[in-house]
Amino acid sequence: MIFSSLNINSKEKIHIQIENHVKEEIEKGIFKKGSKLPSTREVSKVLGISRNSVILAYENLESEGVIKSLRGKGTFVAIEKKLHKGDLIIDWEERISDYGKVCEELDIVKTELPWKKGMISFKSIAPDESLFDLEEFKRAFFNVFSLEGDKLLNYGYAKGYKPLIDYIKGYMEKKGVNLQGKDLLITNGFTEGFDILLRAVTEKGDTIACEEPTHNTAIKIIKAQGLNIKSIPMDSDGIDTNLLEEALMDNPPKLVYLIPSYHNPTGIVMNGEKRQEVYRICEKYKIPIIEDGFNEELMYSGSHVAPLVSLCGKGNGIVYIGSFSKILFPGLRIGWVFGDEKLIDKLESIKRAKNIHSSALDQAVFHKYMESGAFKRYIKKIRKHYKAKYNFTLLQVKKYIPHECILGQGGLHVFIKLKAVNGREVLNECYKRGVVFMPGDIFFNNNNNGHQWIRIGFSRVKEEDIEKGIKIIGEVVKELM
Amino acid sequence: MIFSSLNINSKEKIHIQIENHVKEEIEKGIFKKGSKLPSTREVSKVLGISRNSVILAYENLESEGVIKSLRGKGTFVAIEKKLHKGDLIIDWEERISDYGKVCEELDIVKTELPWKKGMISFKSIAPDESLFDLEEFKRAFFNVFSLEGDKLLNYGYAKGYKPLIDYIKGYMEKKGVNLQGKDLLITNGFTEGFDILLRAVTEKGDTIACEEPTHNTAIKIIKAQGLNIKSIPMDSDGIDTNLLEEALMDNPPKLVYLIPSYHNPTGIVMNGEKRQEVYRICEKYKIPIIEDGFNEELMYSGSHVAPLVSLCGKGNGIVYIGSFSKILFPGLRIGWVFGDEKLIDKLESIKRAKNIHSSALDQAVFHKYMESGAFKRYIKKIRKHYKAKYNFTLLQVKKYIPHECILGQGGLHVFIKLKAVNGREVLNECYKRGVVFMPGDIFFNNNNNGHQWIRIGFSRVKEEDIEKGIKIIGEVVKELM
Repeated sequence: MIFSSLNINSKEKIHIQIENHVKEEIEKGIFKKGSKLPSTREVSKVLGISRNSVILAYENLESEGVIKSLRGKGTFVAIEKKLHKGDLIIDWEERISDYGKVCEELDIVKTELPWKKGMISFKSIAPDESLFDLEEFKRAFFNVFSLEGDKLLNYGYAKGYKPLIDYIKGYMEKKGVNLQGKDLLITNGFTEGFDILLRAVTEKGDTIACEEPTHNTAIKIIKAQGLNIKSIPMDSDGIDTNLLEEALMDNPPKLVYLIPSYHNPTGIVMNGEKRQEVYRICEKYKIPIIEDGFNEELMYSGSHVAPLVSLCGKGNGIVYIGSFSKILFPGLRIGWVFGDEKLIDKLESIKRAKNIHSSALDQAVFHKYMESGAFKRYIKKIRKHYKAKYNFTLLQVKKYIPHECILGQGGLHVFIKLKAVNGREVLNECYKRGVVFMPGDIFFNNNNNGHQWIRIGFSRVKEEDIEKGIKIIGEVVKELM
Repeated sequence: MIFSSLNINSKEKIHIQIENHVKEEIEKGIFKKGSKLPSTREVSKVLGISRNSVILAYENLESEGVIKSLRGKGTFVAIEKKLHKGDLIIDWEERISDYGKVCEELDIVKTELPWKKGMISFKSIAPDESLFDLEEFKRAFFNVFSLEGDKLLNYGYAKGYKPLIDYIKGYMEKKGVNLQGKDLLITNGFTEGFDILLRAVTEKGDTIACEEPTHNTAIKIIKAQGLNIKSIPMDSDGIDTNLLEEALMDNPPKLVYLIPSYHNPTGIVMNGEKRQEVYRICEKYKIPIIEDGFNEELMYSGSHVAPLVSLCGKGNGIVYIGSFSKILFPGLRIGWVFGDEKLIDKLESIKRAKNIHSSALDQAVFHKYMESGAFKRYIKKIRKHYKAKYNFTLLQVKKYIPHECILGQGGLHVFIKLKAVNGREVLNECYKRGVVFMPGDIFFNNNNNGHQWIRIGFSRVKEEDIEKGIKIIGEVVKELM
């Protein structure tokens, strides 16, 4: 019998040995297509093994199409040639698109020095999760789940969970925004909103005007989509409006992308007058603005500054991308795009083509949480908390790090221009001493402009570590100066 | 005083009337830059209104940059020109990219006849949410949230939640897949996995070979990305392998996209022998395969058929896109891409550039649910349930609808070639009589090929409505024949 040449060993699972034996015999040409296999009972007897192993092997072989059992007739070899000539091997790296390449090159998680256990890390500007109100979140989950859990776990709407959309519209209205002719799409955070929006209204080769420096994820997305960046330098109070006007006049970009509040990475809050001026310029040259609402809620002091989009009145030329998740529950990835209703209608189709919709359950729980008043309490708490931490960090920086200037009015980070040294060199040396932070050049379109800058994120670092870490950075700067 | 010309009416909010008045006076040139405004106390007295309204108006005007208050000095007009020349108006429709246009044109939610209240709808192939085990899901949430709720609400990893990745790897291994050199990325459902994968390894103008007909979302994504489709016709047992070989020989496509199990829309399950043959052909011409694991779990009868990717051994030429969410919790949007580890590494960077990561909380709850054994129980339950419903539907179709053929071996839908009539004409007439379904042509790259076909999804329709609806379709077909 064809199984008599098989010696069962004790190392491998028995059914796998049987499967391999059958395949080998077919490849050797000993089992031909159509030839009948012995019954599972016979095989188990001949080999002195449990019949279940043989049954399992036959089932697996049949599911792979190697053998076929015909009711009442027996089991037969189903293929005549070798299983296949070889494994299908593809050189995927050689096949990666230009888009994929840029995404990887500019992926700071992969390219920047990684945090290692025991290190003090100033890399992150994520919120401190110990400040989250978990009890309130849990309550929101139970409330919403008992009400409509079944519906939330089935398909939802591409535009988003209706009560959340309405809530955010109300929230925008309170900021002085005119809702007429506007609509809103829920996205998986700012990143998706920005990616979808650019995809919707640009073609390869178009130009986007940005502040220099700017949010490094925005730089990545713009470049990955094959778009060009026109960088507009910033003063200590924000974008240089004369240079903005020149840029718009000379060679009009497709869009202007701006972060007016707690600008990343500088932390600058553009004042009301400058906002008016920026709006006036863009209106004059009819260039739409993408406003990044980044950390707008994190105002530590002074009066509320209205977002650019509130200046637009009934106009539709400003698209606002918001995200609570920079300060609250980033893990849920909830953001939104607010703008002209016809534009949002197109974005909805793109969202549907990208991932159908954002998690309906997350949106509903998040909405319940916001509605409960917990958000207001949370904002109050974290403003106080982060403001104290910001002031503490600023004090340490001023005390220990030789600098040309320190930018920003708050947020969860401090942006520092070092005195006469290269930020990356400082980083490399600090890394050896257990301290890591963000080199400033990743925020510049022209990396050379950023070589003296570093960004210190303090939100998740303990005060004692902030002092310790900044002291070390200061020592290294002094040594390298 | 400058406010004496203001007559407060009772229709509008008082603070808005004050704000508008100040803006109008500035535009008229009556308030000049630097001129001092009366104090809020004075204004409230003169106008006979509450001081709080005036304070609110001043605050809003200041946040917009229109006025400025200097501590101890008073409040002054901050701008000298008109607020702006006009509203920034953009013609967004004219600016929509080619990508955006295709996404909208092929968005069936927008282009197909909408369900209206009271109608019997066979459009959906979403699962019936009344079969979901909500208690088990709630338990999973509770377990995972008390353990690591704070972490799950903060940023997670682009590749996905580690325990879920490991769980799915084990799940793939049980299907006979070799894990060596392979890795896995969690995505927001099949749709995102397919979109990201194509974006990673194709450039505009490349060709993807597909079964004809095929999943309409796949057609949409391929076309939106500017790629071409090479359609390979199907027999009643799946793709025509002779035509597949011809297509690969003549003008090799970049990738072959296939749905071997419960193919959408035909419902055909490719048998083991054909799977071997398809693999042999692709191996011969070195063309990678994207395998859509669509509804693989929904096997009603017969033995388990191994996925194509299990035939690949240590080879890396097949990328498998899986999604539990076709049958379980679609609202959570959880799917995955499984394939060569270097490729997955690139996809991870793209995922990060698109939306950072999928909801960490959803992944963790989902994992807990799967791990509890609830998934196995659920699958057992729904197989029985949907099998009965499928058989019932099939019976009604055979009884009432004049057809040339009926395809499929299960799933949540039946694909029917009508006798000598156009599916869209039938649909239009049925719609008037309160029945709606999917016209078959949306699943064909060449729409003309599909004009006789219709798809009947039954998962969320009650048995009595199934019979009633199918009877009506049958009547219309007979009338039009």
